[in-house]
Amino acid sequence: MPRAVREQQMLDAAVRTFGQRGYRAASMDEIAELAGVSKPLVYLYLNSKEQLFSACIRREAAALVAAVRGAAGGTSVPPVPADRQLWDGLTAFFTHTAERPDGWAVLHSQARTQGEPFAAEVAAMREEIVSFVTTLIAEAARSAHGDPSLPEREVAGLAQALVGAAESLAGWANVEDSVSAKEAAATLMNFAWAGLGGLMEGRRWVPSPVPAPLPVPSSSL
Amino acid sequence: MPRAVREQQMLDAAVRTFGQRGYRAASMDEIAELAGVSKPLVYLYLNSKEQLFSACIRREAAALVAAVRGAAGGTSVPPVPADRQLWDGLTAFFTHTAERPDGWAVLHSQARTQGEPFAAEVAAMREEIVSFVTTLIAEAARSAHGDPSLPEREVAGLAQALVGAAESLAGWANVEDSVSAKEAAATLMNFAWAGLGGLMEGRRWVPSPVPAPLPVPSSSL
Repeated sequence: MPRAVREQQMLDAAVRTFGQRGYRAASMDEIAELAGVSKPLVYLYLNSKEQLFSACIRREAAALVAAVRGAAGGTSVPPVPADRQLWDGLTAFFTHTAERPDGWAVLHSQARTQGEPFAAEVAAMREEIVSFVTTLIAEAARSAHGDPSLPEREVAGLAQALVGAAESLAGWANVEDSVSAKEAAATLMNFAWAGLGGLMEGRRWVPSPVPAPLPVPSSSL
Repeated sequence: MPRAVREQQMLDAAVRTFGQRGYRAASMDEIAELAGVSKPLVYLYLNSKEQLFSACIRREAAALVAAVRGAAGGTSVPPVPADRQLWDGLTAFFTHTAERPDGWAVLHSQARTQGEPFAAEVAAMREEIVSFVTTLIAEAARSAHGDPSLPEREVAGLAQALVGAAESLAGWANVEDSVSAKEAAATLMNFAWAGLGGLMEGRRWVPSPVPAPLPVPSSSL
């Protein structure tokens, strides 16, 4: 069996073990057994538990980013509308995280809190997705207004909000078996787009004044 | 000095140390020194590093939930409109997480991934906030429609999205020094309410059809 194929089998086993048992609790014995190879072979190919975990993060991060970017690419002519790009990207995101729940657990739960260099690797992936979403929102605002009236800083905040909402819903959909990827994407699209859509048209939410308290009935004075 | 006061000082020092250095890296020596007490006294009062960490989670979770519920309470007569309640709750949330960045790091980053019982404690707090937000959205939908036309399940998803967006923005605002709590709350309110507002009025986002490709100019055939 070629080395590259063997290595992918080891990574498959490692992602599953790290995702389900956590980075610290996972053992190299377990991973080797699940991959159907000897432990020395895992060490020969991937050096250490740390490097194996890093390789899992890199593979899963690259696969997730590729899935989202591929779906929401938007290089077609005539250009796909921004809401459609967002919908395609979200559908791809929730489909991917539903199909690879262990990969998602590695990225979202495990990698972020096991110290460096893992946290930095996953932060870089998240930055890439946030910056992709930022560009999408900025372009949509520009094409709606001609002149972008959403300040750059607010666009960055909106992208952070959208990515956080997607992360939260991915966890929820993976726990609630009955929620499909399509349904999670539709829920977030309704939430996000009608909101972003309103902003694009210059409709902003403004706080309504707090209503005055009811007058006290004179009989109780 | 009364025991209760001393204990709060120890918790202050512990939250700061756990939040800034991480649960594992934090040492009891460091915490005792920062609290200005002896290490044996910390053990006498709080038993172990695990119990000290649990006490930090419980205190910070209770403070955060109280801040949000207190601000978005909505027991006044006449009732405060749902968007105003949400705005008040979000403002309180971002003000609280900005004032207590170490407490937020303990809840959001540290506690969730140090295994049980910590993860369960912080999950319970998150559940409480999600369920509070779910009620708020369901009530708003009911008062807008008379009859709730948003299915219960979708309301739960919207609440998950909103809470995830708030978590993401809190982290962002704490890193970007220039983003105030008010600004973070306004960004999320614009994002969320115009979206939720559209849903309340029965305006849903629907995917636009993918545009047909441009016809190939006949000269290139």
